[in-house]
Amino acid sequence: MTLAPVLARIDSELPQSVERLFELLRIQSISTDPAFKGDCETAADWLVADLQSLDVTASKRATTGHPMVVGHIDGPKDAPHVLFYGHYDVQPVDPLNLWDNPPFEPRVEDTAKGKVIRARGSSDDKGQLMTFIEACRAWKAVHGALPVKITFFFEGEEESGSPSLIPFMQENAEELKADIALICDTGLFGEETPAIVTRLRGLLGEEIHIHGPSKDLHSGMFGGIAANPARVLAKIIAGLHDDTGRVTVANFYDGVADLPADIAAQWDALGFSPEGFLGEVGLAKPAGEQDRSALEMIWSRPTCEVNGLKSGYTGDGFKTVLPSVAMAKISFRLVSKQDPLEIRKNFRAYVQSMLPSDCTVTFKDHSASPAGEMSTDNPAFQAAQRALSEEWPRAAAFVGCGGSIPIAGHFKTYLGMDALLTGFSKDDDQLHSPNEKYDMESFHKGIRSWARILNELSKT
Amino acid sequence: MTLAPVLARIDSELPQSVERLFELLRIQSISTDPAFKGDCETAADWLVADLQSLDVTASKRATTGHPMVVGHIDGPKDAPHVLFYGHYDVQPVDPLNLWDNPPFEPRVEDTAKGKVIRARGSSDDKGQLMTFIEACRAWKAVHGALPVKITFFFEGEEESGSPSLIPFMQENAEELKADIALICDTGLFGEETPAIVTRLRGLLGEEIHIHGPSKDLHSGMFGGIAANPARVLAKIIAGLHDDTGRVTVANFYDGVADLPADIAAQWDALGFSPEGFLGEVGLAKPAGEQDRSALEMIWSRPTCEVNGLKSGYTGDGFKTVLPSVAMAKISFRLVSKQDPLEIRKNFRAYVQSMLPSDCTVTFKDHSASPAGEMSTDNPAFQAAQRALSEEWPRAAAFVGCGGSIPIAGHFKTYLGMDALLTGFSKDDDQLHSPNEKYDMESFHKGIRSWARILNELSKT
Repeated sequence: MTLAPVLARIDSELPQSVERLFELLRIQSISTDPAFKGDCETAADWLVADLQSLDVTASKRATTGHPMVVGHIDGPKDAPHVLFYGHYDVQPVDPLNLWDNPPFEPRVEDTAKGKVIRARGSSDDKGQLMTFIEACRAWKAVHGALPVKITFFFEGEEESGSPSLIPFMQENAEELKADIALICDTGLFGEETPAIVTRLRGLLGEEIHIHGPSKDLHSGMFGGIAANPARVLAKIIAGLHDDTGRVTVANFYDGVADLPADIAAQWDALGFSPEGFLGEVGLAKPAGEQDRSALEMIWSRPTCEVNGLKSGYTGDGFKTVLPSVAMAKISFRLVSKQDPLEIRKNFRAYVQSMLPSDCTVTFKDHSASPAGEMSTDNPAFQAAQRALSEEWPRAAAFVGCGGSIPIAGHFKTYLGMDALLTGFSKDDDQLHSPNEKYDMESFHKGIRSWARILNELSKT
Repeated sequence: MTLAPVLARIDSELPQSVERLFELLRIQSISTDPAFKGDCETAADWLVADLQSLDVTASKRATTGHPMVVGHIDGPKDAPHVLFYGHYDVQPVDPLNLWDNPPFEPRVEDTAKGKVIRARGSSDDKGQLMTFIEACRAWKAVHGALPVKITFFFEGEEESGSPSLIPFMQENAEELKADIALICDTGLFGEETPAIVTRLRGLLGEEIHIHGPSKDLHSGMFGGIAANPARVLAKIIAGLHDDTGRVTVANFYDGVADLPADIAAQWDALGFSPEGFLGEVGLAKPAGEQDRSALEMIWSRPTCEVNGLKSGYTGDGFKTVLPSVAMAKISFRLVSKQDPLEIRKNFRAYVQSMLPSDCTVTFKDHSASPAGEMSTDNPAFQAAQRALSEEWPRAAAFVGCGGSIPIAGHFKTYLGMDALLTGFSKDDDQLHSPNEKYDMESFHKGIRSWARILNELSKT
């Protein structure tokens, strides 16, 4: 089974591929709004039918929320077994008046930067998941079979917190297990560098309430003699970083590995411009640990940030209140082998140590998820890197992701397999916003990329 | 003109004095609520008529808000000329259901601690202002004349910010000027120590907004590389005090005088219990400058307090937002000759000095009033101290007031006269709250106190 005719078929079949994507894009599968429950069912049905047209054994599976779609198709003996994950649900479309065209009437537009497919879900995630299905269709059409064994797994609740995902994985673990999960829900680095996300930061969320006086006091009467929780809170926060930008919580850097030299070299080659990245949001200077590169700050170093603060009177004008309580929401992005629960314990001990005798603290747990770091020794990563580097103008890079993508962790935790995250969206795709689009180039080269990846995977 | 028959007359006339106070208390003169505008007029009319019954030349004076009442009565040749100030308006009465009796149906109640007059305004300030009028009435009844020359000055907007007060003072300065202003709107120290307030702290209010990114950011994407205004704000606040509790703003203590030995001795004699004072609000340990006494902390030392904080997401749950702005309301209580505008300048310079290059700050002005410190060398203060010490079980003390009483400053600024603040309310009078009361002892001994003060003043 050779690759060249598959790629040729993809090129000639592109208009039909776009037409099939349009059918899916026309379905208003907004998962957060109960009014669109029927549309989510319709999208799942459409996917089942489309998979069946490829001779995939596919079915819709009920959950307490929107249905899952699961399908299986065999491959050559001894070929690897991959699971492909995507989601058919989309974000709400408000505010509708900011859309130049109706969000569920997809169209191809010519723009200064080339043709784009405009519709809600074109990039996140219908367009991306269809790149994989279309690659499979081309393989099947040309060779009558697929080069690897594949399980398809689509959910319809990704944009509403995936409440059914973990239970479904647990109940169907044996059916869903494969050698590796492939996920197409991320983007290129810049315009033309394919990226495989191999590092996801974990997240520890903490909420603290510092309590002082039993009620709000008048600062004329009590100012200067009563403990002020807002001042105590400020001191706690100010003490969380040292002058070089390092986090001061005890043992915070335990388990943080330095960036391997090969990854560091790849990142240097990306030509990332911190000025450009920060300039977009009105900033200029990387504010993290001063001895680290900008990409390390967002991809491979842990952080501590304040996400919310509230105390006393915050309305118009002025009230000379001495507040009885001060609240902060503080989060830590975690990397490598940092242990969220250990950090929670040490953070709380630090807060306690900063309290004057007249103050107490209450804590609220929020998320506590460890970082994900994929083992790039896995031959699938090398295969995908080779395949993507063939298709795109620049070599594929193993990159980090500052945020967390829970699904990757769930595959590891519940199904014991690594996830290979790659995708073809661009920074200006307007995900979650009006006028979402997916470049025709992303769609076309995305399909070709998956055809190549399947080919490379079949050799591993 | 001797004092003894005046005091005897006060004692025998007490039931009639209470009845007159009840008439005034029945008038629903709530100044903040336009629905009671007519009641405020009625209260002013009642006072004019009552003053006229003492042969005072009294009249109601229109303002753009509620009317003023001004009256004059002459005294012996060469006797001092005093202005007496009070306010006839009262606080709103919500929540009504927490009152045990209707707030405008005054009654005398027997309690474990003696008889009390229960009604809105009984203590603040109708009962207190009537102590002065009743003292004048007794002098007039016994001797046919008053021992000093008196100007009466009542406003009806004290509980709603006194918007007409300064313009009225400016327009009628010549008419209102006297040797000293007497104000009856403060309380005893504890249960039985009469107090003359000679120190009022000033107030500087500042609001700062620290701006970082041009919009709220995702802390996964930008956490660790983008400047976080909430962290910058915390550092600014944390740096406002050193470890001993002193304020670090440059030249902050310029103009702060140490407490004179005689005042310090008076304060020591008061037997103030910081544990008791703080215990009422769930605290135990004086939190100010560690080398100062508790009374100094609240009466004679300047402070810096945080009155409000807000940044980022403060609702339920957690959002990993990296906020674009962080706000604090910060106030300084000022003493002695501290210059509010100089402190504002130095505070703002400090804030600027703490900003990283990617942050900016905007400032909002709030109040900037200097401290008031009365010259207790003024013979009127000695006279009042003697008179009060005669009437009450314990010697009168010159005390401080942690808050500001703007009227005292206005008399100094616009009419060039010191103010002598004394009064007879108690800590449990429930000012501004449901079930406000004024002890019968406060009312009775209050009238006698003013009779004595007028007597002592006539000798100065």
